[in-house]
Amino acid sequence: MFLHALRRQRLPLARWPLHRFIATKNVVADPMTGEFMPSTPDIQPNRLEIKRNPNPATPPPSNTLVFGHTFVSWAAGAHRHLTRHRVAQTDHMLTIPWDAVSGWGTPEIKPYGPFQMEPSSTVLHYAQTLFEGMKAYRDEHGKVTLFRPDMNMKRMNNSARRIALPTFNGEALIDLIKQLVRLDQHWVPKEPGHSLYVRPTLIGTQKAIGVGPPNEALLFVILSPVGPYYASGFKPIALYGTTEFVRAAPGGTGAYKLGVNYAPGVLPQKAAAALGYAQNLWLHGEEHELTEVGTMNMFVVFSKEDGSTELVTPPLDGMILPGVTRDSVLTLAREHVSGKRLPNLTEKLKVSERRVTMKEVKEAAAAGRLVEMFGAGTAAVISPVNRIGYLGEDVHIPTGEDGMGPVSRPIWTELVGRQWGTIPSEWSVPVTE
Amino acid sequence: MFLHALRRQRLPLARWPLHRFIATKNVVADPMTGEFMPSTPDIQPNRLEIKRNPNPATPPPSNTLVFGHTFVSWAAGAHRHLTRHRVAQTDHMLTIPWDAVSGWGTPEIKPYGPFQMEPSSTVLHYAQTLFEGMKAYRDEHGKVTLFRPDMNMKRMNNSARRIALPTFNGEALIDLIKQLVRLDQHWVPKEPGHSLYVRPTLIGTQKAIGVGPPNEALLFVILSPVGPYYASGFKPIALYGTTEFVRAAPGGTGAYKLGVNYAPGVLPQKAAAALGYAQNLWLHGEEHELTEVGTMNMFVVFSKEDGSTELVTPPLDGMILPGVTRDSVLTLAREHVSGKRLPNLTEKLKVSERRVTMKEVKEAAAAGRLVEMFGAGTAAVISPVNRIGYLGEDVHIPTGEDGMGPVSRPIWTELVGRQWGTIPSEWSVPVTE
Repeated sequence: MFLHALRRQRLPLARWPLHRFIATKNVVADPMTGEFMPSTPDIQPNRLEIKRNPNPATPPPSNTLVFGHTFVSWAAGAHRHLTRHRVAQTDHMLTIPWDAVSGWGTPEIKPYGPFQMEPSSTVLHYAQTLFEGMKAYRDEHGKVTLFRPDMNMKRMNNSARRIALPTFNGEALIDLIKQLVRLDQHWVPKEPGHSLYVRPTLIGTQKAIGVGPPNEALLFVILSPVGPYYASGFKPIALYGTTEFVRAAPGGTGAYKLGVNYAPGVLPQKAAAALGYAQNLWLHGEEHELTEVGTMNMFVVFSKEDGSTELVTPPLDGMILPGVTRDSVLTLAREHVSGKRLPNLTEKLKVSERRVTMKEVKEAAAAGRLVEMFGAGTAAVISPVNRIGYLGEDVHIPTGEDGMGPVSRPIWTELVGRQWGTIPSEWSVPVTE
Repeated sequence: MFLHALRRQRLPLARWPLHRFIATKNVVADPMTGEFMPSTPDIQPNRLEIKRNPNPATPPPSNTLVFGHTFVSWAAGAHRHLTRHRVAQTDHMLTIPWDAVSGWGTPEIKPYGPFQMEPSSTVLHYAQTLFEGMKAYRDEHGKVTLFRPDMNMKRMNNSARRIALPTFNGEALIDLIKQLVRLDQHWVPKEPGHSLYVRPTLIGTQKAIGVGPPNEALLFVILSPVGPYYASGFKPIALYGTTEFVRAAPGGTGAYKLGVNYAPGVLPQKAAAALGYAQNLWLHGEEHELTEVGTMNMFVVFSKEDGSTELVTPPLDGMILPGVTRDSVLTLAREHVSGKRLPNLTEKLKVSERRVTMKEVKEAAAAGRLVEMFGAGTAAVISPVNRIGYLGEDVHIPTGEDGMGPVSRPIWTELVGRQWGTIPSEWSVPVTE
């Protein structure tokens, strides 16, 4: 029925496979034929309706906000992108409905509260959900900023395309997220290392038990103040080299931030914890290539025979999540190599996006050429690793006195400086004056 | 906090990996330590509370119920386990809440209607959902039955273990499902080939943005009358041999009926449809092993040089969903081989669960030894295949005059006879007298 409403323009489409379909300014690809057709309305920030919460809550004291702490004893020391923490939602949330006929509807900022959801909604059956994780920071002058939100919007749209949920103008959503954060800005903690976690989520809400592109969806954004991941100093973590389970596979969804990548990881995480490891190190293929750490991207540092140092992370080959922290680490390291030096970082640095196997890691460790290893993600920023359980033995990895290594420490310093606003950069996007 | 409430018994646990943990009668494994601890209460049918719908609806006329029909032009001929159809929910639904402290709570049968759901519920972010698909049939005498519901309960518990959702007594849930179906029994269509689709679903409802085993969950069952998959005769389908995307991978979740296996399949389905194929034929590995068809299991029939016929389906190697129809087809074929003959089926039949590659299929087709190929699932029961698009060319597959082949036809006849009650069997479980 809505196909008629869309009044398709028939234009040829040469691209294949379908996940390369491009939603250009005013045309989108027909889900069936691949032909371009006029798109329905995009997100329109000027239509925003704000309904203030008549019963605002008092934000919890910052010292009760310890990221990943509250449930950590139960979840067995899980150091992950998002571990369990006492959740305090702020007073408001943003919702934007979508349907296949009308496109994106009226954005609303309204009191945080439950949705009415049909039992037949497709998200509850077929996992039609994707999300982003971002943080709003308060700098020393009180100004609130977001960190590289354009990266999250780009990834969110890529995720949406992968599971046939609607895409949208990322700038428009950033505009609305800023308005939401401004309204709840007193929830952004003042203390260094604290932040306001921002969770945009997009779900399929079609009320019909059928597998297919949903004809209804809901985008919502909720906010939650969080404490620092490491309350005092860095605590290196031990990883379990996992071959029994996979996080991702070629042709799968590992490169997208979809709900489907998370539920299956809980059991392997419990399994690793039962053996005394904090996280899974996901190993791929017969050569046991390193891919990711729990829900973080992963970096390994080798010292080479010529005296140089190589910073390695697996390439974005379809199995690796394109993390914002991953990209930031790579960008800072490459800027350093090209002359925009970071203090206290070796000038003989090589930056590689390439495959790295457990064999290479083991041999480097045995030869004393393994410098350090760390996870990178929004929650912990940098998470040093001191041990990998692999095929029945432990591979030990050097860590510095404070837990950080000689490459991660200067990169971390620059990165959190840019996040907290002590180092000015274009990555920091103002939300308030 | 609830760890204290559980007052753990510390007992050693030797089993590994964790997905082998066994929930025995009164003890379950601690999610962190793997130690056994006393379990919380299981589902208790005697606590059922029934709240009748004060505004019951009139079931739609059966001729409007055509399985997979209503949206089929949009979803491009998708012949899948569950295609889009006009959904009519019955008057009632069953809900059973669970939490980590109290275990399974009071089962309720109440009017079908929306849930109140927190935006932070883990199912909406991390895809903590699993489901089952069953059918209730009405026989020629008016009696309503379920088909092999024990198989669905076993698989549902396996699915729950895989994503750390709570398990339960399958017999207890069957008891409650029977009570639900009995209450809405006038919704079970009388016409042959029609049935009442039963959808048990289990979701994680913890109100906290953290990845981990949820401390709250909800099991619900909804019902929907459906028409026959093939309104008149069988219509063989064309498959696209898919190597660009995967449905499952070793170490993944393909063997479990989880929501996560479905959302990622929508885009490949659209891609196949855009090329003129009804479904994806998921090919695995370098040798392009056949695994599943869309969301159905798959069978291939070869004629051998010695005059025998081989019925082949891929083994349950961790990537294949253990389908109830798959098991029923295998069981009937093996009973035939062992002497409990099916009419009109060759006596020289061999039944194999083994790997089968596209090379073998192509060579058999070229040599005239490919007898037939079909998908097997709850929706279509048997779905014959007449063509496979593979590496740029089409492999053609014989089909009989009515669309069925010489092996599938006698098996289908016996199977639907047992489902509809015209052939008495233990597989048919009475719901009403």
